[in-house]
Amino acid sequence: MYKAPVDEILFTLKHVAGLGEDLANGIFGDLDEDLVDAIVSEAGRFATEEVAPLADIGDRQGSKLVDGKVEVPEGWSELYRNWAAGGWNSLTAPEEFGGQALPHMLHIAAMEFWNAGSMAFALTPMLTMGAVDALEKHGSRELKSTFLAKMISGEWTGTMNLTEPHAGSDLGVLKTRAERRDDGTYRIFGQKIFITWGEHDLTDNIVHLVLARLAGAPEGTRGISLFLVPKFLVNDDGSLGARNDLFCHSLEHKLGIHASPTCTMVYGDGRFGDEKGAVGYLVGEENRGLNCMFTMMNNARLAVGTQGVAMAEAATQHALNYARERTQGKAPGWKGAGMSPIIEHPDIARTLLTMKAVTQGARAITFACARAVDRAHVAEGDAARYWQERSSLLTPIAKSFGTDVGVDVASMGIQVHGGMGFIEETGAARYLRDARIAPIYEGTNGIQAIDLVTRKLPLSDGDHVRGFITELKAVAEEVGSSNLADFGETGNRLDNAIADLEEVTEWLLARLAEGKSAEALAGATAYQRLFGLTLTGVYLARGGLAEVGDGGRDVRIALCRFAAENLLSETAALKDRIINGAASLAGARIALA
Amino acid sequence: MYKAPVDEILFTLKHVAGLGEDLANGIFGDLDEDLVDAIVSEAGRFATEEVAPLADIGDRQGSKLVDGKVEVPEGWSELYRNWAAGGWNSLTAPEEFGGQALPHMLHIAAMEFWNAGSMAFALTPMLTMGAVDALEKHGSRELKSTFLAKMISGEWTGTMNLTEPHAGSDLGVLKTRAERRDDGTYRIFGQKIFITWGEHDLTDNIVHLVLARLAGAPEGTRGISLFLVPKFLVNDDGSLGARNDLFCHSLEHKLGIHASPTCTMVYGDGRFGDEKGAVGYLVGEENRGLNCMFTMMNNARLAVGTQGVAMAEAATQHALNYARERTQGKAPGWKGAGMSPIIEHPDIARTLLTMKAVTQGARAITFACARAVDRAHVAEGDAARYWQERSSLLTPIAKSFGTDVGVDVASMGIQVHGGMGFIEETGAARYLRDARIAPIYEGTNGIQAIDLVTRKLPLSDGDHVRGFITELKAVAEEVGSSNLADFGETGNRLDNAIADLEEVTEWLLARLAEGKSAEALAGATAYQRLFGLTLTGVYLARGGLAEVGDGGRDVRIALCRFAAENLLSETAALKDRIINGAASLAGARIALA
Repeated sequence: MYKAPVDEILFTLKHVAGLGEDLANGIFGDLDEDLVDAIVSEAGRFATEEVAPLADIGDRQGSKLVDGKVEVPEGWSELYRNWAAGGWNSLTAPEEFGGQALPHMLHIAAMEFWNAGSMAFALTPMLTMGAVDALEKHGSRELKSTFLAKMISGEWTGTMNLTEPHAGSDLGVLKTRAERRDDGTYRIFGQKIFITWGEHDLTDNIVHLVLARLAGAPEGTRGISLFLVPKFLVNDDGSLGARNDLFCHSLEHKLGIHASPTCTMVYGDGRFGDEKGAVGYLVGEENRGLNCMFTMMNNARLAVGTQGVAMAEAATQHALNYARERTQGKAPGWKGAGMSPIIEHPDIARTLLTMKAVTQGARAITFACARAVDRAHVAEGDAARYWQERSSLLTPIAKSFGTDVGVDVASMGIQVHGGMGFIEETGAARYLRDARIAPIYEGTNGIQAIDLVTRKLPLSDGDHVRGFITELKAVAEEVGSSNLADFGETGNRLDNAIADLEEVTEWLLARLAEGKSAEALAGATAYQRLFGLTLTGVYLARGGLAEVGDGGRDVRIALCRFAAENLLSETAALKDRIINGAASLAGARIALA
Repeated sequence: MYKAPVDEILFTLKHVAGLGEDLANGIFGDLDEDLVDAIVSEAGRFATEEVAPLADIGDRQGSKLVDGKVEVPEGWSELYRNWAAGGWNSLTAPEEFGGQALPHMLHIAAMEFWNAGSMAFALTPMLTMGAVDALEKHGSRELKSTFLAKMISGEWTGTMNLTEPHAGSDLGVLKTRAERRDDGTYRIFGQKIFITWGEHDLTDNIVHLVLARLAGAPEGTRGISLFLVPKFLVNDDGSLGARNDLFCHSLEHKLGIHASPTCTMVYGDGRFGDEKGAVGYLVGEENRGLNCMFTMMNNARLAVGTQGVAMAEAATQHALNYARERTQGKAPGWKGAGMSPIIEHPDIARTLLTMKAVTQGARAITFACARAVDRAHVAEGDAARYWQERSSLLTPIAKSFGTDVGVDVASMGIQVHGGMGFIEETGAARYLRDARIAPIYEGTNGIQAIDLVTRKLPLSDGDHVRGFITELKAVAEEVGSSNLADFGETGNRLDNAIADLEEVTEWLLARLAEGKSAEALAGATAYQRLFGLTLTGVYLARGGLAEVGDGGRDVRIALCRFAAENLLSETAALKDRIINGAASLAGARIALA
């Protein structure tokens, strides 16, 4: 059973991602270490004791659509109520509407806990928080006063309605339409698919944010508007009014996250209300809906990366526990009586160390990204721009590297279990089934790679990423100058990986400058992994260096060295693929004909 | 829907694996190309038209245990009967017992078809063929005359009973016991788990091969005997007699292969028969059971590698079809109206080409291994030893590389589908769920790696693998001297990969010679992949070279070049991990404490 790694998370927040420095510098006002420790500890306790025990029943029972209503698994309504009552939905929300205005870093740390406890459960708050962000930044005062406080308290949940059957990665072609009414409201008509927690009985109301197109709007992404469409209309006194003209038509049968209802939502077919059309309220300006949605999506992308980390952490714990207890054969050098625990076998040890290293690396990336979000939020001028660019750059990496790690580590976890890993009751298989969606939704990892290469590398004419690489070099240098023998070849390995990253970055920037986007895009996914791997090495090293100062047991240095000497040589292969592989790609298309 | 790639399989058999040369040289008697073509075509047709259409219902319904009987999915009994009536179970079996004595290569080709149609279905014949092999080689004349013909015809199926809860990879500790009776029979008592198709109603009888320990037998693997234990005893006239004292206690709930019942079998608890104990007949000699079982397991390991290839092929077809039809966004350079098919996007094209290349490479390895089995079967003296060693060397690579490719490609296939990939009805997710068992059973891929490094590399004091590497170099040289510009850097890339393979092979042999097995084993899995990747490059090149002679469209050369310039640089990273990574592994164990 999953146990929230509170100490590890606190260490990574403070000593790797930089929260310790920020607290010391008073960046977040009077927030102090004691409060951080208390929040993270209590979030971990709740995930361990309340969420995780309900994950299996959620997976087995799933959510079901019965007579138009979604029934959640046993115990889940109470779980949600307890969770919301704990104030967990309001961590980062503005104080004006009842939020706690805490740093996003704490939110992401807590999100990892909820997701590792049960990814299907954590999707509810994830979507709500995205809707809160969009509404807070783009909603009118009236909309905020009616909806925001109840969404922040968790009394109502929120959803994101983007996808239609023919419009997934390309939202420009969506067909859901909106009609303007004289009273300033709109009526929404259309069908949306893949709507996570689009219908449920956890709360009295659900606030849907829906992308739709007004008649006569420009084609493509510049003609899309965002609307708030509540399940129940809200009276002036805040009480619930009539049922709005929308409903959940069906649920998908999915590989994983069974307890999370994935809904097909139908708007405005006349099932409810006197007049056809779901009542919607404009969020932001007409035809600027995609901008508003990106507010939700950026934070959601980071949160999805966190889901990957969470699955990796849970799968690693599960496999470690099994490998310590299961005995089989005799490992080389085994001196004990009888069979050795399988963790003693070099191949199993290598697998577990790899799982642990990439999980910690991916986690550090999500935290570093969250820190950039936080710093951008409180900074001004050049500093604000610097941190804004940092969060922009790290978001696709956090999303893609984290979710790829989630799938890979969950799969390795099954392998460690041998035959038992394939048996559902063991629990190892669920992590893979749940994790498998994360590289897909909120923009596939391929879309993230396009975003990284074509939009994030060119930030400040490439100087932002160059500056970041310079910062990474400083860490490698610190390792070298530490003269700690336990680091082994870590310093050199980091130098090489960073040099690969730098060379490829310049190569990609040059291709973009020449307008050779097909060539640049051919290696975008490989570049994304190269970046994530290099950051893994650097962040593990930063942890190792901090451990020294901390008088630690050198556990981090040992793991960092393992990663540096075993995993980082992949960067050279990735570099080669990006720079030398593109030429053959076009020619090889005949093999796909 | 899966369509058997008959032409591709025939090409690979003849021009890559060497069947064409063998036919020309009369190695397999009067077997000619027309017969080979006819058999492969008809097997492909059956898989496409009869097996594949029942895969989804098999997955959805699964096999169920009802009142002690296993009920198979709708249509599956008829499917099995039609399949057996087609003579497909008897391809390689000896003519003396009704078999067709055809080369194993054809069997593996057909196995790929059945598995790609439905892996759960293909497990029935896979287990039966393993039992046939063991019985043919080690069974008494009497046992053979009673059981073999009916197992070869498919009238009865066979199973392998190895695993017990505490004895998986390490069979030496199994507890199922056997008692000798005065009439020369034995009584079997114990419980076996993970018994594939251990109970079902497809056939009148089931022939279990069961590993058990006689009282007073030596401890460990040298005290294990193999017994034939039929579900129904067989009368002297061949008719079925009393029900034997064994039954299926329960079925596992598994991630995949739902239609294949995975049984817990209980022997000798007194449920059936007058006297407690399941009647068993000794196969081979007492205490030599593991040797007999290895006959089954070696062929089964190759067949499991084929399962991986089959899942990869089916997943690739599924993803290709989707990527050609699904339109989304505009790919760089897209000139068509509206959105482009997603196959036009560089990242999707790269993914599909990778899927295709590794699938073809893994397939070629399984065929090359099957060819070695065939040649060993008909050769004598040094040649027999050469081919025997070749099949021994290739078996763990075929098993592990094929099954890893199966999982990786199935996962990539889901990714290509985007959100639809996560929806079960799409069908892409099943390939991953089914494929995930293959790296685990018949010896985990970690066990294969141990086998490869510690038992296969030392064959003929290392000279067999050295000779093989020399053969690989000749192919690289042929590419270089072909002077075909379309090969691009393929020749150099192959040279590098083979040099990496050679260097690591010598390094491992040296470690073994020094008794440093922990160091050698630390990199065993990486070595296994290095070997598989290098073979992929070489076999794709052999296909490309054959295509030239064949006046083909250079499709193979283009795919080979893509693989060489994009995938083979991983060998350098693997080499580094093996040689330089081991040192940090021991020290990093503190991170697992």
